[in-house]
Amino acid sequence: MIVISGSASPKLSLRVAKRLKCKLIKPEMSSFPDGENYTRIDADLKGEHVLVVQSTCYPQNDNLIELCFLIGAVKNLGAERITAFVPYLAYARQDKQFKPGEAISIHTVCKLIEATGATNFVTVDAHHEEIMRNFSIPAYNLTAMPLLGRYLSKLKLKDPVVLGADKGAIERARHVALEMEVEYDYLEKKRITPEKVVIRPKRLDLVNRDVVIVDDIISTGWTIVEAAKMLKHQEARRIYTACTHPVFVGNALRRIRTAGVKKVVTTDTIERKESVVSVASLISNVI
Amino acid sequence: MIVISGSASPKLSLRVAKRLKCKLIKPEMSSFPDGENYTRIDADLKGEHVLVVQSTCYPQNDNLIELCFLIGAVKNLGAERITAFVPYLAYARQDKQFKPGEAISIHTVCKLIEATGATNFVTVDAHHEEIMRNFSIPAYNLTAMPLLGRYLSKLKLKDPVVLGADKGAIERARHVALEMEVEYDYLEKKRITPEKVVIRPKRLDLVNRDVVIVDDIISTGWTIVEAAKMLKHQEARRIYTACTHPVFVGNALRRIRTAGVKKVVTTDTIERKESVVSVASLISNVI
Repeated sequence: MIVISGSASPKLSLRVAKRLKCKLIKPEMSSFPDGENYTRIDADLKGEHVLVVQSTCYPQNDNLIELCFLIGAVKNLGAERITAFVPYLAYARQDKQFKPGEAISIHTVCKLIEATGATNFVTVDAHHEEIMRNFSIPAYNLTAMPLLGRYLSKLKLKDPVVLGADKGAIERARHVALEMEVEYDYLEKKRITPEKVVIRPKRLDLVNRDVVIVDDIISTGWTIVEAAKMLKHQEARRIYTACTHPVFVGNALRRIRTAGVKKVVTTDTIERKESVVSVASLISNVI
Repeated sequence: MIVISGSASPKLSLRVAKRLKCKLIKPEMSSFPDGENYTRIDADLKGEHVLVVQSTCYPQNDNLIELCFLIGAVKNLGAERITAFVPYLAYARQDKQFKPGEAISIHTVCKLIEATGATNFVTVDAHHEEIMRNFSIPAYNLTAMPLLGRYLSKLKLKDPVVLGADKGAIERARHVALEMEVEYDYLEKKRITPEKVVIRPKRLDLVNRDVVIVDDIISTGWTIVEAAKMLKHQEARRIYTACTHPVFVGNALRRIRTAGVKKVVTTDTIERKESVVSVASLISNVI
């Protein structure tokens, strides 16, 4: 097994190589004057199982094309098995049409990765499990939720509750809560009057309890900001948030902190200062 | 036949639609806050032959991914035949390995275009004809050289000579010269002493003749600049240059003009102010 480090995932690649106790190769990459990528892998990969690790975070298109070129180069070097490990899969939220004629972009992205020669695909907390069906090669969608739960367990929270950021996140909240051995629920938007909307847990009472809001991805952060404000009103004690993919558009992080969130716990599917949990350990289960 | 206008080729798309006397559709395109493309084609394409026109000039990766999403959306809308018309094909100069382990990027690019659902492929003056062999769908490499020749014919040049920028460009020079009904040759680098290199035509004398330097692509412009300086020494009268793809990195155009080139004649495979020749007429031959 050999690990190839894509330019968007240098730290995760290193962690994966250490955990699998295998060789790590950093490809030679640069740009031509006209802006085209140059990619070279200086290694003998004949007959090898190669793991290409590359997040498709911003700039998504550049990182995606780099991934394709890396897979192409690995294939040319005679690798027998090529696993594309894409910890954050861009375009995953474009998985259905809201209006006719919309591109189902994730469908195309999956095709691109497969067409370049990947023989296996692995990602983490893809927006929907069904996305894996776009592949005809074996494709695994792993979850980082138990890892986030394990990290949160050590924070000594007071009588904690884990809350899915919305109904769609209840399964993720359950995974986190199971690891922490605490209660879980999800946040529900309720219209009280035509003007007034509240966001509160479906079942549980929060008074003087620490709360962890869980989601797969934090993008602009507005969902968390709205929820945090409401939870403060409901007399929750301290508010934490945990997500797999720290997309963090613009001032998202500052916005979340200003709304009173004590700590943001996230992973290295996108490498941020807040990536205190690594998804490296997940890969060993499917390799 | 319906023409879909990619964002890198709005003018060419319009010209192609006019020439083919068919409907032109401008897709709805925007970006999400996190930087992902949004693509929508508001049209019924069931059973249609659709021509997607998109150059893959800078930013190459963004334009390439846009092309893939457009093709994907067209396919979803039920088009029967999808021709990808990519007038300038990025990464075409990365078609072989100079060092082992280098990505043959053009190989991957062709796979991406085909994988998304294109049923036919058309490009103009690809760096090498062999690139078309990367496709298993019908793929055509058209040449704009006669069109450039026709334009140059009208410029009233004095006893003109057409020169390939190097040996590899002799075939292109021949096509231009045939249309102009003039002589052609190519520029050869000759080492006179260990320190001194001259660039001159292989056979022809240039004294007091107008010269047209021909190449497929002008990128940094240094090839043309060097040649122009040498041709001035050889008492050529006026120097013109003609190319299909005006890549024009940074100050390339100013550099070329400063070197004494009177006029740069080029096409709309990349849409520039200097794109005085349109390749729109070529497509009707293969549709």
